[in-house]
Amino acid sequence: MRKIDPARQQERRRQILAAAAECFAENGFHATSTAQICARAAMSPGNLFHYYASKAEIIEALVASDTDALRERRQAGAARGDARAALVDWIDENLARYREPGYARLGMEILAEAVRNPRVHTLVMANESERKASLTALLAAVWQGVSRDALPRPVGEMADGLLLLLDGIYSRSVVDPQFDAAAGGRLLDAVLRDCLPPVAGRAGEQS
Amino acid sequence: MRKIDPARQQERRRQILAAAAECFAENGFHATSTAQICARAAMSPGNLFHYYASKAEIIEALVASDTDALRERRQAGAARGDARAALVDWIDENLARYREPGYARLGMEILAEAVRNPRVHTLVMANESERKASLTALLAAVWQGVSRDALPRPVGEMADGLLLLLDGIYSRSVVDPQFDAAAGGRLLDAVLRDCLPPVAGRAGEQS
Repeated sequence: MRKIDPARQQERRRQILAAAAECFAENGFHATSTAQICARAAMSPGNLFHYYASKAEIIEALVASDTDALRERRQAGAARGDARAALVDWIDENLARYREPGYARLGMEILAEAVRNPRVHTLVMANESERKASLTALLAAVWQGVSRDALPRPVGEMADGLLLLLDGIYSRSVVDPQFDAAAGGRLLDAVLRDCLPPVAGRAGEQS
Repeated sequence: MRKIDPARQQERRRQILAAAAECFAENGFHATSTAQICARAAMSPGNLFHYYASKAEIIEALVASDTDALRERRQAGAARGDARAALVDWIDENLARYREPGYARLGMEILAEAVRNPRVHTLVMANESERKASLTALLAAVWQGVSRDALPRPVGEMADGLLLLLDGIYSRSVVDPQFDAAAGGRLLDAVLRDCLPPVAGRAGEQS
């Protein structure tokens, strides 16, 4: 009997998910066969099925692994120095992902699957909830040391406003080929500015 | 041979689409049978198939009829008096629709179908394009008589910003049960205020 190497297993799963994400983004979830995923991952069907029993399990794992990555990053982020830079980076990375055509397509495939499949729906809701927790934690770090009464508005409300704009930018970039992303970015910058303490009294920097 | 009464035919189509929209919102597009749509519309299958050959044709007709309604309203709106009120009404009606659970569900069903079905995708893109044309026309009417150089920014950019916020509010209300719609509304109000000329010089009122 072969020994199980957990690191190797994890690397295999990561390979399968990366290959599947590419296939789903290119051809859609329904038009992708497991044979195509195997070919992309350079893996036999037997090997792939050892990790995931079905295409549905792969899409579930894609959402769950994104949620895990968000959570790990949130937990690691608590130790970081520059809270303001961390918040700006998080938002910029979201915007950069929306500009990748593969990401936009994969996101739509996952949403479409969430409408049909209650398990995917539950995982997408958990992902959204972790996204909101991540952004709320970043905002709380920026305002650390400022009393609740002195905040311009609650950090939860700031997070709602920023997520709303990010979702709106994603949606417009998907449905409107003429959408002016720069104008969307300016709107986001204005709202973000309202979510940051004045630079003179940088409450977010606890270095 | 029976005479064809176009008004009656149109009323029949309207009945079928209304019944189908209710069924799709309740159970989803794929879980709805044409038999259920017939029962809801109080119509025989033969009668229904006379108007629409398949469930797919019905979802296509739902999107197309919304686009037609938007276009007719835009064309009729050119004759209206109070441009400012027409703009505010248009936005409020969008927000009111997002608060109807059936509408939110139906919207997600249509988006999910657009991901799978190129014909639905094309119709959804046309609908988005008409939405943008409607909002741009409303904004142009509000700023009528003001020279292009005197605008705070181009009306197309104002329309992009407002559609982005509307899409974001829709998206958050679908993915986040805790979403604070009032906070979303305040953000939208602030951006809308930036899209309106000062009340003193009401450029939008051409009565």
